[in-house]
Amino acid sequence: MTTPTTLPTEVARDLAEFSIEVPSWGYGNSGTRFKVFGTPGTPRDPFEKIADAAQTHAFTGSAPRVSLHYPWDRVEDFSALRDFAGEQGVSIGMINSNTFQDDEYKFGSLTHRDASVRRRAIDHHLECLEVMRATGSHELKIWLADGTNYAGQDSIRARQDHLADSLAEIYAGVGEGERIVLEYKFFEPAFYHTDVPDWGTSLLHCLALGERAQVVLDTGHHAPGTNIEFIVAQLLRQNRLGAFDFNSRNYADDDLIVGAADPFQLFRILFEIVQQDAHRPASGVNFMLDQCHNLESKIQGQIRSVLNVQETLAKALLVDRAALADAQDRHDVLEANAILMDAFWTDVRPALAAFREEQGLPAEPFEAFRASGYEEKVAAERVGGNQMGWGA
Amino acid sequence: MTTPTTLPTEVARDLAEFSIEVPSWGYGNSGTRFKVFGTPGTPRDPFEKIADAAQTHAFTGSAPRVSLHYPWDRVEDFSALRDFAGEQGVSIGMINSNTFQDDEYKFGSLTHRDASVRRRAIDHHLECLEVMRATGSHELKIWLADGTNYAGQDSIRARQDHLADSLAEIYAGVGEGERIVLEYKFFEPAFYHTDVPDWGTSLLHCLALGERAQVVLDTGHHAPGTNIEFIVAQLLRQNRLGAFDFNSRNYADDDLIVGAADPFQLFRILFEIVQQDAHRPASGVNFMLDQCHNLESKIQGQIRSVLNVQETLAKALLVDRAALADAQDRHDVLEANAILMDAFWTDVRPALAAFREEQGLPAEPFEAFRASGYEEKVAAERVGGNQMGWGA
Amino acid sequence: MTTPTTLPTEVARDLAEFSIEVPSWGYGNSGTRFKVFGTPGTPRDPFEKIADAAQTHAFTGSAPRVSLHYPWDRVEDFSALRDFAGEQGVSIGMINSNTFQDDEYKFGSLTHRDASVRRRAIDHHLECLEVMRATGSHELKIWLADGTNYAGQDSIRARQDHLADSLAEIYAGVGEGERIVLEYKFFEPAFYHTDVPDWGTSLLHCLALGERAQVVLDTGHHAPGTNIEFIVAQLLRQNRLGAFDFNSRNYADDDLIVGAADPFQLFRILFEIVQQDAHRPASGVNFMLDQCHNLESKIQGQIRSVLNVQETLAKALLVDRAALADAQDRHDVLEANAILMDAFWTDVRPALAAFREEQGLPAEPFEAFRASGYEEKVAAERVGGNQMGWGA
Amino acid sequence: MTTPTTLPTEVARDLAEFSIEVPSWGYGNSGTRFKVFGTPGTPRDPFEKIADAAQTHAFTGSAPRVSLHYPWDRVEDFSALRDFAGEQGVSIGMINSNTFQDDEYKFGSLTHRDASVRRRAIDHHLECLEVMRATGSHELKIWLADGTNYAGQDSIRARQDHLADSLAEIYAGVGEGERIVLEYKFFEPAFYHTDVPDWGTSLLHCLALGERAQVVLDTGHHAPGTNIEFIVAQLLRQNRLGAFDFNSRNYADDDLIVGAADPFQLFRILFEIVQQDAHRPASGVNFMLDQCHNLESKIQGQIRSVLNVQETLAKALLVDRAALADAQDRHDVLEANAILMDAFWTDVRPALAAFREEQGLPAEPFEAFRASGYEEKVAAERVGGNQMGWGA
Repeated sequence: MTTPTTLPTEVARDLAEFSIEVPSWGYGNSGTRFKVFGTPGTPRDPFEKIADAAQTHAFTGSAPRVSLHYPWDRVEDFSALRDFAGEQGVSIGMINSNTFQDDEYKFGSLTHRDASVRRRAIDHHLECLEVMRATGSHELKIWLADGTNYAGQDSIRARQDHLADSLAEIYAGVGEGERIVLEYKFFEPAFYHTDVPDWGTSLLHCLALGERAQVVLDTGHHAPGTNIEFIVAQLLRQNRLGAFDFNSRNYADDDLIVGAADPFQLFRILFEIVQQDAHRPASGVNFMLDQCHNLESKIQGQIRSVLNVQETLAKALLVDRAALADAQDRHDVLEANAILMDAFWTDVRPALAAFREEQGLPAEPFEAFRASGYEEKVAAERVGGNQMGWGA
Repeated sequence: MTTPTTLPTEVARDLAEFSIEVPSWGYGNSGTRFKVFGTPGTPRDPFEKIADAAQTHAFTGSAPRVSLHYPWDRVEDFSALRDFAGEQGVSIGMINSNTFQDDEYKFGSLTHRDASVRRRAIDHHLECLEVMRATGSHELKIWLADGTNYAGQDSIRARQDHLADSLAEIYAGVGEGERIVLEYKFFEPAFYHTDVPDWGTSLLHCLALGERAQVVLDTGHHAPGTNIEFIVAQLLRQNRLGAFDFNSRNYADDDLIVGAADPFQLFRILFEIVQQDAHRPASGVNFMLDQCHNLESKIQGQIRSVLNVQETLAKALLVDRAALADAQDRHDVLEANAILMDAFWTDVRPALAAFREEQGLPAEPFEAFRASGYEEKVAAERVGGNQMGWGA
Repeated sequence: MTTPTTLPTEVARDLAEFSIEVPSWGYGNSGTRFKVFGTPGTPRDPFEKIADAAQTHAFTGSAPRVSLHYPWDRVEDFSALRDFAGEQGVSIGMINSNTFQDDEYKFGSLTHRDASVRRRAIDHHLECLEVMRATGSHELKIWLADGTNYAGQDSIRARQDHLADSLAEIYAGVGEGERIVLEYKFFEPAFYHTDVPDWGTSLLHCLALGERAQVVLDTGHHAPGTNIEFIVAQLLRQNRLGAFDFNSRNYADDDLIVGAADPFQLFRILFEIVQQDAHRPASGVNFMLDQCHNLESKIQGQIRSVLNVQETLAKALLVDRAALADAQDRHDVLEANAILMDAFWTDVRPALAAFREEQGLPAEPFEAFRASGYEEKVAAERVGGNQMGWGA
Repeated sequence: MTTPTTLPTEVARDLAEFSIEVPSWGYGNSGTRFKVFGTPGTPRDPFEKIADAAQTHAFTGSAPRVSLHYPWDRVEDFSALRDFAGEQGVSIGMINSNTFQDDEYKFGSLTHRDASVRRRAIDHHLECLEVMRATGSHELKIWLADGTNYAGQDSIRARQDHLADSLAEIYAGVGEGERIVLEYKFFEPAFYHTDVPDWGTSLLHCLALGERAQVVLDTGHHAPGTNIEFIVAQLLRQNRLGAFDFNSRNYADDDLIVGAADPFQLFRILFEIVQQDAHRPASGVNFMLDQCHNLESKIQGQIRSVLNVQETLAKALLVDRAALADAQDRHDVLEANAILMDAFWTDVRPALAAFREEQGLPAEPFEAFRASGYEEKVAAERVGGNQMGWGA
């Protein structure tokens, strides 16, 4: 198709309704086991993180919620944090639990062999539910670092049973209109076995719990070569895709900017989403970022990420689905593929710029933010204190 | 532990009861897309395949069943084939369907966009059920080559729905005391998406069908790095591990001799089996070989495979599980691992030789078969005709 | 950048000079070890393959050479084949040797333990040099299927030594103005070790031989996750990148259409090419396709492939390299990346259509070929005979 | 073969001469980006690390050298450290440079775009050469964290040129009887491209430098599926295998105990070593451990590692190489493989216990160390101070 100057009405409507949740920790320092580099202006407390996150929304108009990580984002008064977010133009999204940084969790948390450690981990999640309610959120996200490094270290089967029991206790605390989402991950920090390594395991636990439990798909948490869009289609078919953690990877869980490593994969994923209408708010799928900006500017990286998802979603929405179905009916492999690629190669940037201007947003959010002076301002203001990172 | 000269009573009992099913096609020619090499003496019909397969059982005492592949193993009178097997000292095991070699299946079979092709594929499976009954078998194994090579070629979601419907029709034909098992595979022959790519997908379809549907785990059908023993433990926990396809791999679905590429992986898998008593006949898990002997002698390769599984199972049975649980309770990672490794490194071959002699079997089945003259005999006899391979 | 309606002069010049070589075997049938599907109209002899290949050039203007595979493309009179190609508007490109389909090569060819088999394989290559000269070609491509399936099967080290000696004998036959290129491959058809598995091994042998020996990089012949553009940059730095085999892959050596699996990877690769001016004919790099069109129309697939490379090369040429260097100097990670992505997302199709029309070519070669009636014509004409595939 | 009670004379001699170098940092805390767990008794300074490392040698008799990491192991008086090591019965081995933890190295070190940063990194290596001499060492090991996270971030080619120049400056400082070894790594901490990602790149730089530069092979630094023993054979064939970093992995660079993830791979690697006599001190290959003991006891983990290498080397030495060559000559794939496996499955532990006792060592070093009370003693003594980890 020729480069469109405006978006079709329905595409514009869908994009206007579509939103992405950003992670508070994406605005703090991150790195690898080798080194965490700091940057001037990095937030020193959860309020500053939210202030930065609000910039992402201010410039893109598509990132109205901020996920918290508990206890990294612990504050004395969560209602004050909620109110502060509101003043900044955003709200609190998912609450992410953390059972991987206390010494007691060295050998597991909800799967731990010792009931006392499991108790502690369960109670942590119940506390997270309190934080959730105190911040106006309705969702608790559970990612477990649980696993083992050596064959024989613990019983794979027994840990599954412990996990089921622990989750059942947490689930009992989930009220109407609330939900938990369970994230799976192929490996890291455990290097022999991981207790929730794949979508099948996450889904089985959710099915056992009930309808308020759903699966989180993190695009970086799969084995090499995994067809992620297949999993998306499958989880949507089961009505159990609760949330997305967007990022990208070349090797392991690299946590790079979404769309940076393989933009065509992002397009294929979003096309599966679009085909099942899961990009619409009514689907209940929460689209989130979960990334590390180790080397690059964090706010800029977040804005770029939101734009990458938005642009790619626009492409996915532009696929001529009637023509595609027709080519598929005729088993015309190359034409079907060409119809998909036509949308992928269409330059949606001019039309998106126009769309943003209509909404009173900068046509070019990335450039506009860079020119805004915000980063220079906070770098000058945020002197002293401890920059926040992956720690409470 | 010191090298045992005899097996503990319970281990000997378990090994005596344990059996492995061999594939008829393992005795025919196989290869890669580049070349299929032939060998003198290769069977020219299903009867000769069964005769060869019976050698594996005669020398190991542990391979009493032969899987058939239909229509590769089509004969005019299946009861004659069943009787012939009986005379050779073996019986017919699983019937494997084939929906990947007719031109009509170019774009799929049970998942095909066109109802007429699905009909044909469903009917083929119903016919396989007939073959199953005619040969005294009770099990139908379904592996599908279905998938696509290019994004957009077909609808991933629609194909799942077609698959569910097609399987339901087949399942309706499965009687009491019978079962179907559904195999998953990461990729090949499809290179973009595969319709049953992972255990989760296979399990979801089995759950939707009912208790007579179970999952087949082929050890070569996973993404790089996948922890297969975890999947074993998980499927056993769901009571849905129907069968195993043993082989080994370094790269893709290499179909090498089981235990050849990573003997420690085989040990870990069998230890998960043993911990849930799934090696016992009562578990209903059918342990099968599914391999290609492209370069090596086929019967020798099959015997070696049976011995590899048997020896490794003996090691898994020798793990001091009480001591292991105790070390795990103390979170003594290295001792727990050492207990496992102690069994792995124990040389069970002398005790197994003694065990075999007690059963009236050759102490060294591999060497005994090589010395038996069978290969020379069939090479001399089987002159003319067409050697069988991966074709009907 | 905004969508260009015409290409900048230098870009147009570079594209006009750039050419892609197509493989004769890409026009024949191909498949997997499971099944090779036939298609009406598939060539029955090398002349028909060249006629089909010439269509790719006629519609794209960028595919003037056809690689041969010997003995698959053996004809009685190679000068007649050369002349026929000339009449069709194309010439003969690289000659590809074949040492993987004779029974003697079951355990290797140039690396074989037995001197007599090595002799045969060396002589085959010397014969290929004759074919090369008879067809007006100057290049011999060597890809070896050599390797082993089981640890211990043969000596890895001894095979390297044999390989070095065998190659030296072949190299002695390479005259001035001629060259050999040595292709590496991660695995398949060998599943334990491959004798030329990586670029390092290929390069070491080329360095030992001399300047008329160079490396072939096939984009599908690497381990999962390998950064191929790094290898491109490294081989160019050594002046040893002789040729490219384009295709794409999701899993193993899937041999899909170039750019189909990961178009951004193709862009990154071509950008490394462009940065070292290696896209220019003077570089001596031969850009070739090596693909399997198992399910799709073969000529259409080839045309699509040529267009994918051409479009992506245009994008790579449009990168604002001065701005990129400036952003790199400032360590502005996101701006540097954005400059690259700007070119990637630019829709070059309108400008390329205009460029083609100026050259007297169809603006849309893919659609034009589909509308030409050629496929229907050959399907009607080519009745009887044996369709060609991966066999002599 | 039957379980030997004593080692053959030549095997005993080879094992007596064989030694493994242990890393000082293996005795400090380590972990993942998620968490570093501490343990009572962890060393607070380089002297305590060496004291712990000396335990590994005291109990195994095979770990007489300790690698240092600079500046992690910086002390005021290196000759004092050297003397302390001597008193503990060990000596200082390789000096490992570190250019990944200063803020200046955020975008690279020896490859950095800015000459001033390269200067600093070069000077650091020259300083390491001083440390080397001050500690009685003769070897400098270079592993670079250099790379990029995003396409376009920097010029892959220019960085190679910078690397070559920087290494040349360092190499100029390497005297007779000294050497540098250059380690390659597939990825991490860089996630798009790594400047020395594979053995080919490392070897090219070493070849350009001269004979005092050799390659380090770390068993965890390869793409999934890589045949590492092939690389070993290839580097030995080039006389450029300088050193080994032993560890094991299931996924990425997991840095688990050597032999823990895939003991058969370790055996195959050591068998290639043995076949080229590279296990002998005269080969100049330095066999080292490079591991992280995140969860398990560090000294115990090191002892287990040394024992794993020693036991596996014994197996590799027991391979009946004459019989193997004979089976290979006959292309008897299964017999050749069986000869290898026979050695692998042979239980060498009783013979090794006897061998150790003859040398005045504990028959069971792992158990003996655990019973020695050393860990309890240092846990009680080392109170206060800062436990050492991956930091200066």
